[in-house]
Amino acid sequence: MQRYFAKKEENNNFILEDSDYHHIKNVMRMKINEEVEVVYNNELYIGKIENLNPVTILNQKKLNRKKENKPEITLYIPLVKEQKMDYILQKATELGVDNIVPIEVERSIIKLTEDKYLKKRQRWQKICKEASEQSKRITIPNIGFLQSLDNLKSEKGVKLVCSTQEKTKNLKNIVKSNKYCDKISVVIGPEGGLSLEEEKTLQNYGFIPVTLGSRIMRVETVPLFILSAINYEYME
Amino acid sequence: MQRYFAKKEENNNFILEDSDYHHIKNVMRMKINEEVEVVYNNELYIGKIENLNPVTILNQKKLNRKKENKPEITLYIPLVKEQKMDYILQKATELGVDNIVPIEVERSIIKLTEDKYLKKRQRWQKICKEASEQSKRITIPNIGFLQSLDNLKSEKGVKLVCSTQEKTKNLKNIVKSNKYCDKISVVIGPEGGLSLEEEKTLQNYGFIPVTLGSRIMRVETVPLFILSAINYEYME
Repeated sequence: MQRYFAKKEENNNFILEDSDYHHIKNVMRMKINEEVEVVYNNELYIGKIENLNPVTILNQKKLNRKKENKPEITLYIPLVKEQKMDYILQKATELGVDNIVPIEVERSIIKLTEDKYLKKRQRWQKICKEASEQSKRITIPNIGFLQSLDNLKSEKGVKLVCSTQEKTKNLKNIVKSNKYCDKISVVIGPEGGLSLEEEKTLQNYGFIPVTLGSRIMRVETVPLFILSAINYEYME
Repeated sequence: MQRYFAKKEENNNFILEDSDYHHIKNVMRMKINEEVEVVYNNELYIGKIENLNPVTILNQKKLNRKKENKPEITLYIPLVKEQKMDYILQKATELGVDNIVPIEVERSIIKLTEDKYLKKRQRWQKICKEASEQSKRITIPNIGFLQSLDNLKSEKGVKLVCSTQEKTKNLKNIVKSNKYCDKISVVIGPEGGLSLEEEKTLQNYGFIPVTLGSRIMRVETVPLFILSAINYEYME
């Protein structure tokens, strides 16, 4: 069943984005009395289409669902080229990321002004919303504001940095030995990796350097690898 | 250091593809006496560029390397649109797949004639070679011929099928409980999944149905998820 995220609920009707109404009428060509899945306030409902001009969706019933047993996952990723970024956002959403926070790092090729960034962020949030509907998520990943590494000082929970230097400690060691944590944050480096100074800074902030193994992955592959690994660890 | 795969070795010189010579001269603009990594017969060497017209690469020395401790991984994937296929091949190579075998399934949208397939296969093999160089692999994944599910009858090793029906057995259960196997083969379904008959057929051939969890992944995300999970399981 098609899934949509509601903005709010008014007298038992779900209010969606205009683009969702367009999707219901003109893309899905739905009929009156057809049912859709609606996510509202992180809860899942069945909605019934009562009217098409304008679209009104009645709250039919709330569905009970099994909560996912995994920590909140935050990925700090360097700005990468548009196409790679879109790809990371879509795949990371499919793979259950909770927060994606772009970071400014020495070797990142992309620099953005505040305004440009905010425009892009809107687009990125839309990509995450659509991927969330498509992959049947209950939450939409949140895209943070562009951060410098210094802003990661106060980060809580289990904190990792993908290191080009670290040879012994790997992702598995740390994720396994922190199985019951509430929050995992991972800093991913750009092509060529973080600079030694950057790695050092993050270690001073309590980020544990880990290797992802001997294989060299492209920067856009790393978030998928990490999210897949964490999903796997928490499978039951 | 740039890595290349050699076709053969003749009087202590490595013979590469013409496209590699072009890459050395015109893309990397290498100079005489520069060194490159050369993989030949699944072994890693340092080669020295002795001449540029034509390029000749001397075998300097063989490097010892730690063998990867993981089973041989074969992915059976339905034919998907060109762009998704290229993407799966590149990422699966980065993530250590050994064999990729396209399969003909009921719900696959793409149908190919034998000739068309062979042409595509050449292109795909090239994508895997380049991704192997880029991700510093010692082997290039092998792309099999297009198979019908009946040809999987004789498959050896641990055999899994990504199931839309299975609710209890998951990827982790099976991979963990077969940790010391030599070979894992996984059949991935198309958008909409394999048909019930197809799943049944594969189960009759000894493929164990597994779920990948509650989240819905796009068909091109599934191979990455599975490979990342297996890599994670074998990290040490």
